[in-house]
Amino acid sequence: MFNVLIKIGYDGTAYSGFQIQENAPTIQGEIEKALTVIYKETLRLNGAGRTDAGVHAREMVANYQAPFDIDLNKIPHALNCLLPDSIVVHGASAVAPGFHARFDAKGKIYSYTLDQSEYPQIQKRLYSWHLPGFLDLEAMNRVAKSFLGTHDFSLFQASGSTVTDTVRTIYQLKLICLPAEKLLRIIFEGNGFLYRMVRLITGSLVRVGKGDLTEKQVEAALQLKDRTAVGPTAPAHGLCLEKVLY
Amino acid sequence: MFNVLIKIGYDGTAYSGFQIQENAPTIQGEIEKALTVIYKETLRLNGAGRTDAGVHAREMVANYQAPFDIDLNKIPHALNCLLPDSIVVHGASAVAPGFHARFDAKGKIYSYTLDQSEYPQIQKRLYSWHLPGFLDLEAMNRVAKSFLGTHDFSLFQASGSTVTDTVRTIYQLKLICLPAEKLLRIIFEGNGFLYRMVRLITGSLVRVGKGDLTEKQVEAALQLKDRTAVGPTAPAHGLCLEKVLY
Repeated sequence: MFNVLIKIGYDGTAYSGFQIQENAPTIQGEIEKALTVIYKETLRLNGAGRTDAGVHAREMVANYQAPFDIDLNKIPHALNCLLPDSIVVHGASAVAPGFHARFDAKGKIYSYTLDQSEYPQIQKRLYSWHLPGFLDLEAMNRVAKSFLGTHDFSLFQASGSTVTDTVRTIYQLKLICLPAEKLLRIIFEGNGFLYRMVRLITGSLVRVGKGDLTEKQVEAALQLKDRTAVGPTAPAHGLCLEKVLY
Repeated sequence: MFNVLIKIGYDGTAYSGFQIQENAPTIQGEIEKALTVIYKETLRLNGAGRTDAGVHAREMVANYQAPFDIDLNKIPHALNCLLPDSIVVHGASAVAPGFHARFDAKGKIYSYTLDQSEYPQIQKRLYSWHLPGFLDLEAMNRVAKSFLGTHDFSLFQASGSTVTDTVRTIYQLKLICLPAEKLLRIIFEGNGFLYRMVRLITGSLVRVGKGDLTEKQVEAALQLKDRTAVGPTAPAHGLCLEKVLY
């Protein structure tokens, strides 16, 4: 067997998330279908994570065990010919036999994009949360810092997860203003994120930016003392998995 | 009657162009449908131009004769509530009774975007022509200059037009490199453009960039001497109407 790692960008708009499901279009489902055509047998794709319905990725990583060798340079092109144009494979490499895209991941980088223009920007609307109006960026920056480091993020998790260890470390949480494009981008880098954690933190940050939530309340939530400071869940389409770290 | 001008951005991906057609989705058709709901009667929208199927607009201008007055500040919001999210009205103003968005237009600005990255960028793919590989930008810039000014552009016109006066003036034709985004954008400003003229000029410029066409050949086409230097027609989805000039 040949263990192959692929890098995948996708537009999540039309998909019910990364993970395969019956009777719903998924990224994994589309790629497994394409792999079956190429390798003439059913293969299982291990994604580094499971993005939700509507969430995008610039560089998701996945691996699969190939029954025979194919020139690695040809794999992206072969898959892209079979995939819809909302999924693009842009890299393939050989990895050690035991490598697993999910278990070996050391961390992830996500971005969350806000469109701050008065009316939604037509070419950004699928990839950003339209949120016009003033945001207090200084307050947001201060609060962003309190998320850094290792915390029990159990309050910053949506129900529906079976994860028991809710301690995660955030290495980076920064706001990037792109005034020419009227965008505000929030970058999250951490060793892992709980179910909807990025979107819940974004929701809290936005409330801080609007003056509806104080720094103290967010800190109380991080000390597991104030559930009301969490969220709301920011919409899926503003979120993008930027990179998986190994 | 109240003559109302509106500014419209749209994602042309799912539309058969701006101009209304029976049994096909069009921008004009969607907006007229929304206007009918608001004004309770059928209104005709005069667009400043007719973009082709798949072409986008950041600021198309149109006008209509309203049977009664509505607070202009409320018109964009009222229309946007009724329109699909691929069409956004982002301005409304009162204009003189005789104003006509098409006949009074003094010019237009278009952009054509090339995605020069190796694999299509997932969030740019609907709004750019994916064209990896080397382009000789210096040669393209030189040739771009020869289009400036007043010419008979009759060769740079697709068949299917009934226009008889084929003389147009191009005020600006410039290449903008966006290396961080791996995009090349071509800006066209002129007093008017023939049917598919921007896409045909883009096709010629790209051939120059690839070294498949010389400056001399393009000049011969502008002197109506060499039809082979024209085009091919660049794909619709890279084109965007940026602004209508009055």
